Amino acid sequence: MPARVDHEHRRRQITDACSRITARGGLPSATFREVAAEAGVSVSLVQYYFGTKDQLLLVTQQHLAQRVAQRLRRRIEETEDAPRAIIRAIFEEFVPHDDESREAMLLFVALHTASLTDPTLRRPEAQAITDGLWKLLAHELSRARRRAGVDVDKEATMLTVLVPALAQAVLSDALTSNDALAIVDYELDRVLVTA
Amino acid sequence: MPARVDHEHRRRQITDACSRITARGGLPSATFREVAAEAGVSVSLVQYYFGTKDQLLLVTQQHLAQRVAQRLRRRIEETEDAPRAIIRAIFEEFVPHDDESREAMLLFVALHTASLTDPTLRRPEAQAITDGLWKLLAHELSRARRRAGVDVDKEATMLTVLVPALAQAVLSDALTSNDALAIVDYELDRVLVTA
Repeated sequence: MPARVDHEHRRRQITDACSRITARGGLPSATFREVAAEAGVSVSLVQYYFGTKDQLLLVTQQHLAQRVAQRLRRRIEETEDAPRAIIRAIFEEFVPHDDESREAMLLFVALHTASLTDPTLRRPEAQAITDGLWKLLAHELSRARRRAGVDVDKEATMLTVLVPALAQAVLSDALTSNDALAIVDYELDRVLVTA
Repeated sequence: MPARVDHEHRRRQITDACSRITARGGLPSATFREVAAEAGVSVSLVQYYFGTKDQLLLVTQQHLAQRVAQRLRRRIEETEDAPRAIIRAIFEEFVPHDDESREAMLLFVALHTASLTDPTLRRPEAQAITDGLWKLLAHELSRARRRAGVDVDKEATMLTVLVPALAQAVLSDALTSNDALAIVDYELDRVLVTA
């Protein structure tokens, strides 16, 4: 195996460990020591690859964004090419329903919360997920048959805000996944004309 | 001043300091040492009153919930007794618009995020704010003239989820307060019949 591939593999092994620890115990628990133990590598290797905790979190965030985008793309490819089906699939993908989606959302929430008080964590990578989501939703809404009074831009903004909001409500057991998706169906009934 | 009042005053002085520090630097920065320095008291006094960090966070959360409920009650009393005006006032109150509302929302988000990975922080006090909000919104929706297809329970759930979601979008500079309130107006136009 070429050395470069090995580096990439090791870096991802470490950011995966950082994701799991954050999902289990929150961001404060993701120390170099804990991450190294979880990844089964030495602390000095984590230091060698990432230098600072901010850098480790940044790359963990980039890897998360890639993973989420890839899952979402695959999911949309498998979905019927109809606006309503695609919008629902987006919510189904983000609302926690298995360990991976739960871990991804916990990590997203942890990084987002930390970025509110630590501006060094407010990176374009975090905003890219939200921007991509908005564009996708606005595209599907604009090609759909919409009810009177629906504004594509504002509706896309509201749905973009609702994605992590419903996901968080499920994470905190305020809603079940089924409750959350029932809210999505209710909103889509009021937005789209379905034959 | 009777001793009991003095204790209450001191406890609140310490939880206020804990709020300010959390709003500035996130929950991990709210150590006994930092909180004591911010409150201008000794570390041993913080320990005497609260014992553990969890206990300090619990009481800080209770004080926050009281403060938020009081502000909201006052705001609603000053508002015209009409469902739309009251629902809008609720969003205006929670969407950050001054230092106090910003600090309250940052603290709420920080505690909520921590509670996702630390079940000892998942206390009835946090759920009480959400439950109270849902009841208030459901009550206003149920007495309003509603458009066809509006389901009071589901709409109240969606609005309850939107309150912290829009507030967080404003905290992270994804939306301005005006953008956030424009989304509220858009949604209310689609839910309520306004003469």
